[in-house]
Amino acid sequence: MKALDFWFEFASTYSYLTAMRIEAAARRAGVEVRWKPFLLGPVFAGQGLSTSPFNIYPLKGGNMLRDVERIAAAMGLGFRTPDPFPQNGLTAARIALIGCDEDWGADFTRAVYLAEFDQGRQISDKAVLSDILHSLGQDPEAVLQRSESPENKARLKAQTETAMQLNMFGAPTFMTEDGELFWGNDRLEQALYWARHHTLEGFFEQDAG
Amino acid sequence: MKALDFWFEFASTYSYLTAMRIEAAARRAGVEVRWKPFLLGPVFAGQGLSTSPFNIYPLKGGNMLRDVERIAAAMGLGFRTPDPFPQNGLTAARIALIGCDEDWGADFTRAVYLAEFDQGRQISDKAVLSDILHSLGQDPEAVLQRSESPENKARLKAQTETAMQLNMFGAPTFMTEDGELFWGNDRLEQALYWARHHTLEGFFEQDAG
Repeated sequence: MKALDFWFEFASTYSYLTAMRIEAAARRAGVEVRWKPFLLGPVFAGQGLSTSPFNIYPLKGGNMLRDVERIAAAMGLGFRTPDPFPQNGLTAARIALIGCDEDWGADFTRAVYLAEFDQGRQISDKAVLSDILHSLGQDPEAVLQRSESPENKARLKAQTETAMQLNMFGAPTFMTEDGELFWGNDRLEQALYWARHHTLEGFFEQDAG
Repeated sequence: MKALDFWFEFASTYSYLTAMRIEAAARRAGVEVRWKPFLLGPVFAGQGLSTSPFNIYPLKGGNMLRDVERIAAAMGLGFRTPDPFPQNGLTAARIALIGCDEDWGADFTRAVYLAEFDQGRQISDKAVLSDILHSLGQDPEAVLQRSESPENKARLKAQTETAMQLNMFGAPTFMTEDGELFWGNDRLEQALYWARHHTLEGFFEQDAG
């Protein structure tokens, strides 16, 4: 089965939209999704940015919030602006890394996104993350401890460095097995199509048909 | 008939993709397109940017070129990176403003985009613009002269100021009659849907159906 890597950051609004729909879209396309948490902080710093571009360029940030609000509503999802934005997703990403090795990474990721963007909870709060782990049948204390092991911390760092080596500059980002990079929730369908066909030829005809 | 304002800048790669497909998409949606040339230079300057964000953030710029190349190929359009990028579209925008009052603005705009992104010509070159005007049955010298009248120059300046008052920060931008702003070629379908329905509710069901 063809595979698509889904690189996401917990602070990212558009990653939220993708996380909530990628499995259904991938199933329709016959593509397997590999969930890849990483951190945008170092990625932005590598571009000379001290925070999210949406904070640096407020007109763009304001439009992003309205855009996500419109799309979320049409998808039947809640959306509120996190305060502060962006949220600190470091602990959540460390946990997700473990969950993605086992079979609960995608469920955990969706639950964190809903806590953050639907319920307006602080995802840097370990109590919030513990609640989610508990609801997934995981032992919160044991998982939190594993997530903060030197090995796991180093792994998240390495995964973020891989993202930078792959020229990622934002999230969500999709990578096909033949190395094609697609950026943004609005490119998910193209990324899935490319994962199967190694081209976009026919993509728009398919839409019209 | 519902209308949608299509704000475009001649240097903008994604405006090219939109210009080549908006009339067909709008016809299918039953929406009238109003073509609005403006200048991104002052818009970027208002955000503290001295050039295109694609030049300031090279990773993003590199991805943009690949993204446009993939989409253009799938649309059956040529694409080459203009040199220099961005091109200076001032004269073309002044002419388009006149053409959009008459009945040749859209044809002129598409021809300029093809000259720039398909044929790799310099759109700041009046000879290139004259060729296009001639091919459209216009008198190049007369149009160029009108385009450089103080009144027409002031009008393009005013149109760009309007764009800034409407919080535009890039191109293409779509504005619905009820004041909803959509940014980017990838938002054209949503903008057309909103122009008719004043909501995105039902937009994704429509796609799946």
